[in-house]
Amino acid sequence: MAEALYIIKIGGNVIDNPEACSRFLSEFSKIPGPKILVHGGGKIATQIAARLQIETQMVEGRRITDKPMLDVVTMVYGGLVNKTLVAQLQVSGCNAIGLTGADGGIIRSVKRPVKTVDYGFVGDIEAVNASQINALLESNLVPVIAPLTYDKAGTLLNTNADTMASATAIAMASFYTANLIYCFEKKGVLSDPDNDDAVIPSLSPVSYLEHKEKGVINKGMIPKLDNAFAALQAGVGKVTICHADDLLKAIGEQAGTTITL
Amino acid sequence: MAEALYIIKIGGNVIDNPEACSRFLSEFSKIPGPKILVHGGGKIATQIAARLQIETQMVEGRRITDKPMLDVVTMVYGGLVNKTLVAQLQVSGCNAIGLTGADGGIIRSVKRPVKTVDYGFVGDIEAVNASQINALLESNLVPVIAPLTYDKAGTLLNTNADTMASATAIAMASFYTANLIYCFEKKGVLSDPDNDDAVIPSLSPVSYLEHKEKGVINKGMIPKLDNAFAALQAGVGKVTICHADDLLKAIGEQAGTTITL
Repeated sequence: MAEALYIIKIGGNVIDNPEACSRFLSEFSKIPGPKILVHGGGKIATQIAARLQIETQMVEGRRITDKPMLDVVTMVYGGLVNKTLVAQLQVSGCNAIGLTGADGGIIRSVKRPVKTVDYGFVGDIEAVNASQINALLESNLVPVIAPLTYDKAGTLLNTNADTMASATAIAMASFYTANLIYCFEKKGVLSDPDNDDAVIPSLSPVSYLEHKEKGVINKGMIPKLDNAFAALQAGVGKVTICHADDLLKAIGEQAGTTITL
Repeated sequence: MAEALYIIKIGGNVIDNPEACSRFLSEFSKIPGPKILVHGGGKIATQIAARLQIETQMVEGRRITDKPMLDVVTMVYGGLVNKTLVAQLQVSGCNAIGLTGADGGIIRSVKRPVKTVDYGFVGDIEAVNASQINALLESNLVPVIAPLTYDKAGTLLNTNADTMASATAIAMASFYTANLIYCFEKKGVLSDPDNDDAVIPSLSPVSYLEHKEKGVINKGMIPKLDNAFAALQAGVGKVTICHADDLLKAIGEQAGTTITL
């Protein structure tokens, strides 16, 4: 069996909370062996945009990334958030290296085609350079990936962090037994959105459908779960969705929701 | 003789000019063999700070970096400027990877001690991890370094790009014949600040002193030249100061001002 690689996605709500983020980074730095962190953006980009008097346009819960907003997310995700995480990890003994998809050409995308909505400078992932990422891992570096990619014209593109994490896990599955863990501020996928303890311990495609039909799965969770099933189908060994505080528990035994085929 | 490594510093005035910057990146991407780019910040940080209503405090031409300004330079230098350069280089066939001193722990510093002036979150370089930088070069990556470092507490620190370039060149001189080239918007060190063609072709410590005593060397040039002589004394093979458009000429034959011992 190939060596285990952990690909951890940390959500924006955890990043926005300095204490929760610091606890998470301490857990993350204790994972032995090769690992990758993919981080979301958090609300800081929206706050900075507001202070710069750039209007945040949202369509169906998704941010429209015009050029001024692209500059803001490049500054905030690629600069402030990414480098703050990297510096904190470095002093926790974790040899972090902050990257966007453009760095080392690790994740290239294509600007999302305009159908009914023009999302602006948003990228749909086209290619993950697994060999380049592996070269970094083999140098004992820990990639910390911001939710930005680039296209063939050299334009940076705002990119969904959940999708970046699953695409990275899928690509790395050719070198490692890839374990993908989505960490966020809830204990897992909940069967009752009003009860934080109503964690569904495991979800198969069939039980997922059943829960979806009952309408008990939070809408925001659906793209994450679709990414999770896609990752398993494409060769990722294990996918877990859990609380950021339960990261080591999820690795050691079980925590949150395990996604299965 | 060890393999040649080019460490190129590009000044903020070139970065602020999209056409000049694009010409420079095209030249830079044509340099064969291992190379490193260190970039300055440019005026964008001051502009963004003004739009965020953060006052830019200057003492003796140096920016005071309080916490709000540190966040701005982290966003602008580490995010917007660095990632824009990286994405442009990637599509020019140059396998760029954007880094601050914190990434891979490549350049650690210490917060500048308060004497007469408290410069705030400004770093004085303490250690360059030449082995880690060399591992990246050996993976055929081209480090693109932003003027930010970190300290032992995990705090990011605003750091002079000229000094980062010379410290990097000095550290890399144990692995390579290090060539340090400062590229900016002038043709070299000028003997007459009002005549852009009055380039001094070469400067030794003696002729530097003579020019300084005559008061003909622009004050802003003095820290750059002090860095240049320090680099040569510490084992760097060659130091040149030239126009960004003359980069390949400076490598191939001669352009700008060559600094000699």
